[in-house]
Amino acid sequence: MIAIDLKFEHLQWQYQISTTFFIFVILPALYYIYAKYISKSPNRYNKLEAPVKFKFPIPDEAKPHWKGKRLYPPNLGIQVPNEPNKIQSYCPATGQYLGTFATTSKDEMNLRIQRAKAAQKSWAHSSFLLRRQVLQTLSRFIIDHQEDIARVACRDSGKTKLDASMGEIMVTLEKLNWIIAHGERTLRPSTRPGPSNLIIGLMKSGEVRYEPLGVVAALVSWNYPFHNLLGPIIAAIFTGNAIVVKCSEQVVWSSIWFVDLVKAILKLLDIDEDLIQLVYCFPNDADYFTSHPDLNHITFIGSKPVAHKVVENAAKQLTPCVVELGGKDSVIVLDDVADFNALSSVIMRGTFQSAGQNCIGIERVICLPKAYEALVDILSKRIKDLRVGSNIDQLDEIDMGAMISDNRFSQLENFIQDAVAKGARLVSGGKRYQHPNYPQGHYFEPTLLVDVTPEMDISCNEVFGPVLTMIKANSIDEAVEISNGTEFGLGNSIFGKDFKTCNEIANRLESGSVAINDFATFYVAQLPFGGVKKSGYGKFGGEEGLTGLCNAKSVVMDKPLLRALGIATAIPPPLDYPIPNDKQAWNFVHSLNKAGYDNRVWEIVKSFKKLASGGA
Amino acid sequence: MIAIDLKFEHLQWQYQISTTFFIFVILPALYYIYAKYISKSPNRYNKLEAPVKFKFPIPDEAKPHWKGKRLYPPNLGIQVPNEPNKIQSYCPATGQYLGTFATTSKDEMNLRIQRAKAAQKSWAHSSFLLRRQVLQTLSRFIIDHQEDIARVACRDSGKTKLDASMGEIMVTLEKLNWIIAHGERTLRPSTRPGPSNLIIGLMKSGEVRYEPLGVVAALVSWNYPFHNLLGPIIAAIFTGNAIVVKCSEQVVWSSIWFVDLVKAILKLLDIDEDLIQLVYCFPNDADYFTSHPDLNHITFIGSKPVAHKVVENAAKQLTPCVVELGGKDSVIVLDDVADFNALSSVIMRGTFQSAGQNCIGIERVICLPKAYEALVDILSKRIKDLRVGSNIDQLDEIDMGAMISDNRFSQLENFIQDAVAKGARLVSGGKRYQHPNYPQGHYFEPTLLVDVTPEMDISCNEVFGPVLTMIKANSIDEAVEISNGTEFGLGNSIFGKDFKTCNEIANRLESGSVAINDFATFYVAQLPFGGVKKSGYGKFGGEEGLTGLCNAKSVVMDKPLLRALGIATAIPPPLDYPIPNDKQAWNFVHSLNKAGYDNRVWEIVKSFKKLASGGA
Repeated sequence: MIAIDLKFEHLQWQYQISTTFFIFVILPALYYIYAKYISKSPNRYNKLEAPVKFKFPIPDEAKPHWKGKRLYPPNLGIQVPNEPNKIQSYCPATGQYLGTFATTSKDEMNLRIQRAKAAQKSWAHSSFLLRRQVLQTLSRFIIDHQEDIARVACRDSGKTKLDASMGEIMVTLEKLNWIIAHGERTLRPSTRPGPSNLIIGLMKSGEVRYEPLGVVAALVSWNYPFHNLLGPIIAAIFTGNAIVVKCSEQVVWSSIWFVDLVKAILKLLDIDEDLIQLVYCFPNDADYFTSHPDLNHITFIGSKPVAHKVVENAAKQLTPCVVELGGKDSVIVLDDVADFNALSSVIMRGTFQSAGQNCIGIERVICLPKAYEALVDILSKRIKDLRVGSNIDQLDEIDMGAMISDNRFSQLENFIQDAVAKGARLVSGGKRYQHPNYPQGHYFEPTLLVDVTPEMDISCNEVFGPVLTMIKANSIDEAVEISNGTEFGLGNSIFGKDFKTCNEIANRLESGSVAINDFATFYVAQLPFGGVKKSGYGKFGGEEGLTGLCNAKSVVMDKPLLRALGIATAIPPPLDYPIPNDKQAWNFVHSLNKAGYDNRVWEIVKSFKKLASGGA
Repeated sequence: MIAIDLKFEHLQWQYQISTTFFIFVILPALYYIYAKYISKSPNRYNKLEAPVKFKFPIPDEAKPHWKGKRLYPPNLGIQVPNEPNKIQSYCPATGQYLGTFATTSKDEMNLRIQRAKAAQKSWAHSSFLLRRQVLQTLSRFIIDHQEDIARVACRDSGKTKLDASMGEIMVTLEKLNWIIAHGERTLRPSTRPGPSNLIIGLMKSGEVRYEPLGVVAALVSWNYPFHNLLGPIIAAIFTGNAIVVKCSEQVVWSSIWFVDLVKAILKLLDIDEDLIQLVYCFPNDADYFTSHPDLNHITFIGSKPVAHKVVENAAKQLTPCVVELGGKDSVIVLDDVADFNALSSVIMRGTFQSAGQNCIGIERVICLPKAYEALVDILSKRIKDLRVGSNIDQLDEIDMGAMISDNRFSQLENFIQDAVAKGARLVSGGKRYQHPNYPQGHYFEPTLLVDVTPEMDISCNEVFGPVLTMIKANSIDEAVEISNGTEFGLGNSIFGKDFKTCNEIANRLESGSVAINDFATFYVAQLPFGGVKKSGYGKFGGEEGLTGLCNAKSVVMDKPLLRALGIATAIPPPLDYPIPNDKQAWNFVHSLNKAGYDNRVWEIVKSFKKLASGGA
């Protein structure tokens, strides 16, 4: 309880407030007032760009207790027999049929790119205010329809609703709101120091202006059908570009609905909805798309083998690419962690979120000896409690959903068998799982594998599945070496009590991102996201994610004072064609270089004298 | 004259100073004192990193009046008959033989890359102070040996000494001194705003740290043998990387000397000279290099056809590339220019510098009608005064040097003939030129072609030679349309009296850089440099040139206050595996999303209440 006494002359008020009420009602209200009226976070509460309310029909398939027919092998899968240009969508958790869609033909792809190109012409000059209003409206719709969106994503990907609430909804809202708050500042012209030359530096100033590139493309992966699709669309809209997204063939059904949702918002705000285009096809037919001459930028989120093809195709048109591939992300655990139980919760969330189908999912837990023992002990018990299934229809209480398909089950089982053969201990799980209620669902047992060593296949290949892999290291150096010992370099985490030690380790890890004492928060924090080594290159997210979709145009001009005085720079007479005297011309520039860049006073003085005499 | 009277009690001093002395001695001295002691430009005059003096032998070939033997056809050229693995260097201005060099074999390339990799391990942790000392020492050597360096560059490329003084020496000194002044600030960790989420934003802070990539590669063009080679080396050294440079087969002789010069400085400062490696081969043998797995970044400066191959090879290893290709840079001239004569000097310098072999050379002059008439008139007279030849040995007074080889002469002549056939008027030049003193030199006549229209081959293909091309536009809109009407987008200039109009045009031009009322100064000003469209992608120069050679590592951590209080973020109980209650878990994140991203006060308050109850 918090007691408040207010006395004013003869009047006296007394309040008693519950601490909970204070923390969860009063404090947030104060913070809200601060954020709205006092902090400089721009435009979040600007009436001019207030979100517009609208209705958008929710598909029957995303309603609870939807009774869709189930597919049975051999009709389960995205291929349609004898119809090579059709894609079948179904729910990987239940096998329920969602629809059949004709792949986008080359002509149609071209048509959509041309439509996007035409729509971008005017969008390039749209105001940040209007762009924010699009984002505000989308953000409000997502906030108000979290359950609908989660169910659409879950139905097409088989994940749990909780996985969707964080991995689809929260990260997308963060992206939207981060750009609403910081996007305009990021894309404002950036003033630069200008030349370091003592003389030229007095005359010229320069800046970088961020202009849209035109039509950008994104080829996105299926593991977060809402977030991965919306992310590039949001960034493209805000930077003044048009975008053509190629969704994964695994999630066509939901992608269509998500893109239609954004298009509906554009229409609502009187913006040309051609700005956003969706295409889909089987991987082998994507060459036409990635080598199309009218794409000005390609973001590829997917796997390494496909990345090679995308970059090679883009090379035909010299289209710049951002390449976001897999990882073999590690968590390094030091011995001095205070609460191993709390840490085990983080590790489990980081491993089993979306059944491990997470590019920054935890693929390796590398522990110092004491931490290793403590964590193996805790996790061995906790792993057995995990329940697998589907909660889209709210029939079950579960922890982990299905995988997108069964085509990698043998590979996963082989990784595990290889590890066991080489000395690892399989504590739990390890193989595919036929769920009694959902026999067609693609389930894999939550797996705990301990005593893993760097020599085993599983410790260097990306698993992308629900396998918790424990590796013991005898020292920090060894832990860092193991962590850096794969071809990937996407993200890593370090847990330890001493911040300085953790921070030093962060600097030694070969990866694009590091979280200290947390998991994957660099992604939520809208820091630039991207890998090194074979995890790809280029960044999306944060400032770099926006400026990377722009032509950073360097503009140089005379300093305002010179302009005001009407002084223009010109070719000095000794250097004017025809060169009056070769030797004097040389001397003039020679002295200009000395005067501009030498740091010996006498040399500078001599150079200025020579310049004054025109190099004579 | 400036008169100064100083009175002090009964004493009186009187000074009379010449205005020239005041402007060129007193003012610079004051500015120097300001720069050294008052301004915040860091480290330029720091004693700890003061340049070290050293001697480095100048090759005989670069001494004036060197009597090298001349090659005659068919022995002129870089090919050696019957020796496919040898490259012959010679002076394109005089035909003088400079040496024969064995191309770098694949094994040797690999060895050099491995050596660079080994040397980088410790260099990655070197101090900015030491890195600046390398740059300071190089800068001082260049300042003190401008003539030697210019002669080496001229001897191998055939350009004039004046061209070298600006295009080789000045720009390299600017790069060095800009990095000395601004490099460390650029590479300091960059604090980011962190998450926009009302709750998570209170807990997490994030920053981007710039770490060296490892071994970077640069494939550089021959047109500025000193500057193009040194630029990537300087940036690599300062960012803590090792570098392997592939110089052009056209300028092997000078490249060896330039690289040895930098290696000598490394040795002098006790730094492993393996940090810098040079390789050279014929273009068809470069595939091994550009697809080498141990290169972490490739900068390619060259032509479009080769770029496709480089990027395709790099795709095999997913090596990120910066691609800097040609341009078709335009100068747009408005009618209200005050001094067409002064402008004509800039246009001539921008066109004939390095005999037009300049990626940001002026390829098209697009004028409004009045400007067109004035400039055609002036340029028609001035063009005839240009003298072609060689001044390396100080025998002649000349304006324009040789071209690197004669292999593009027919192409240039065809462009000109096509233009004339389609209605252009050839005022001067137009064909190859046999110089009476240097019959083996590769000379082309300074050419003025007027009445050019966008339909002619010459107005859309890169000429990369001494051809001044005049195009008339009837309006600003038409001028912009013509300027944007090629596949290239490197740099452009605009000349006009009204800054606002020029600035608006700058925003409409499709190119990586724009100079207002000047030519190519964006390059000197160390703004990020790179093109759009088929001129390539990625940037070197300025801040982006340094950060682009780094892994921009995103690091996220708890806010210092939380760390001080010992508060660690953890998985909230409702979300902990096994999920206690599916519905409550969903409600919890649902409320977290609302509380974090909604902007309706009542909704936020309700969400906080729900969060406090754990989603119940």
